[in-house]
Amino acid sequence: MEKTDMEKDFTELLAEDQSLIERRLGELFQDSPRFADLQEAMEYSLLAGGKRIRPVLTLEVCRMCGGEVQLALPLACAVEMIHTYSLIHDDLPAMDDDQLRRGRPTNHVVYGEATAILAGDGLLTAAFEQVCAARLPAPQIVEAAACLARNAGPAGMVGGQALDMAGEGRALTRPELEQLQSLKTGALICAAADLGCIAAGGTPAQRAQVRAYALALGRAFQVRDDMLDVISSDQELGKNTGSDQANEKTTFVTTLGLDGCAQLVEELTRESVRALDGFSAPGFLIWLAETLAGRKA
Amino acid sequence: MEKTDMEKDFTELLAEDQSLIERRLGELFQDSPRFADLQEAMEYSLLAGGKRIRPVLTLEVCRMCGGEVQLALPLACAVEMIHTYSLIHDDLPAMDDDQLRRGRPTNHVVYGEATAILAGDGLLTAAFEQVCAARLPAPQIVEAAACLARNAGPAGMVGGQALDMAGEGRALTRPELEQLQSLKTGALICAAADLGCIAAGGTPAQRAQVRAYALALGRAFQVRDDMLDVISSDQELGKNTGSDQANEKTTFVTTLGLDGCAQLVEELTRESVRALDGFSAPGFLIWLAETLAGRKA
Repeated sequence: MEKTDMEKDFTELLAEDQSLIERRLGELFQDSPRFADLQEAMEYSLLAGGKRIRPVLTLEVCRMCGGEVQLALPLACAVEMIHTYSLIHDDLPAMDDDQLRRGRPTNHVVYGEATAILAGDGLLTAAFEQVCAARLPAPQIVEAAACLARNAGPAGMVGGQALDMAGEGRALTRPELEQLQSLKTGALICAAADLGCIAAGGTPAQRAQVRAYALALGRAFQVRDDMLDVISSDQELGKNTGSDQANEKTTFVTTLGLDGCAQLVEELTRESVRALDGFSAPGFLIWLAETLAGRKA
Repeated sequence: MEKTDMEKDFTELLAEDQSLIERRLGELFQDSPRFADLQEAMEYSLLAGGKRIRPVLTLEVCRMCGGEVQLALPLACAVEMIHTYSLIHDDLPAMDDDQLRRGRPTNHVVYGEATAILAGDGLLTAAFEQVCAARLPAPQIVEAAACLARNAGPAGMVGGQALDMAGEGRALTRPELEQLQSLKTGALICAAADLGCIAAGGTPAQRAQVRAYALALGRAFQVRDDMLDVISSDQELGKNTGSDQANEKTTFVTTLGLDGCAQLVEELTRESVRALDGFSAPGFLIWLAETLAGRKA
């Protein structure tokens, strides 16, 4: 098979996964009782599109580890629900005070702060209901719920957000930035991949490999994100990249420069690909890491 | 054994349970990494005292159903963590905007809104980590996590809070008030009791009995709470109970009057006691229901 054909296959597989995820997310609260505008607010943010990278990781890691993708779907949705709740809460006036998210008004702008807080709480709680509803052996469900709680909780994602808030208004050192990012975004990406392996009944060694893949991919993703922020705002505003660094939030670009970032993304992507050594069909996940590294948006 | 001796035993048992719970809650984040003031903020609210009714229910239902109390302790703590997170979020400026809770400044007054939101998120997430860490067979852990998520989530406690917010500023009908309270406080009290039965490996019939007990107890608790609000503010202010009803929040007192409430508390307490028919040692839980019904604070 030629490379272009394989790429076409992977692009199709990605689109299939994404539509599987969209459909399931859309059904989650369909038969739920609806209280005030809570369920609508949850769906507003949950169904706002996005690349669905995290749940795709769950599904495709499951497939690579020999598992049934359908069985991993509730776990994949749980990860996306947690990602979505974190965006809703991060956007609140008391946090980043963002008005727009993916081109639409943020949750609290549409539904008010109280409902936005509750929509986040509701999605976070319902994520664990989803995990428990998976048609998997009970020990795997417990493992999955524990993994998700550990990585999303105060020693993981929530801890990273606390560091982010505490670090506002001052420059961070490189180790501080790395720690913040590994908690704030890395932990949930790792959990997403790990959950796929758990759903497939993977071995501890496989789980370690998959986490190493996701760890490097998550770091590359974040560095690339910081690069795109600068590149897109340069294109929009035609302004010099290096300006105003003292007033800017510390990012990988302010720390390493654009060239340093490009090099780091390359290294991390190679590292993530290497972590999959020994799996018989890592093709899609390799392609995904390389595609994310080169993405333009 | 005379009644006074039994009461003394029950009072001692309650104190034992409470100190067991306090100790475990105090240890929860002792060895955790500490990020900014997140862990301190979580502990500030988690260790603020209170009667610990919910976790006591978990422990004593477990004991009544023949289980080992120690095995139910992580589940009991998880319930209290969820109760605490809900108080932190309810107190936020965007919600009830409360400055004081149990005589101390609320979480956001001490740590700021951002940290208070994250402390709530952290406690909620860590509650599920606690459940998963219980030394119980995996199917019981899955059952417990599912029960907790269902009752605390958008179709339970969070849904009740959304109804409460949406109903502000207008009078509620009796059915609206009942629905709101059964979701906002009843669901988690039911879950607390159910978790105790799950930890003990109780039968579906036992679980139904225990939930019926907790349902009636939870309603009685709420009605008594509304009565105490009026009684204590009357004593403080020496003002007439019935005044300003149009401007007041709808409560069981505004709906039924104090005498109607007293009668309802009595009926519900009898109902909760009856639900335990057939258990061999329901003494403590009967005493607890009767004690809560007559409580002065």
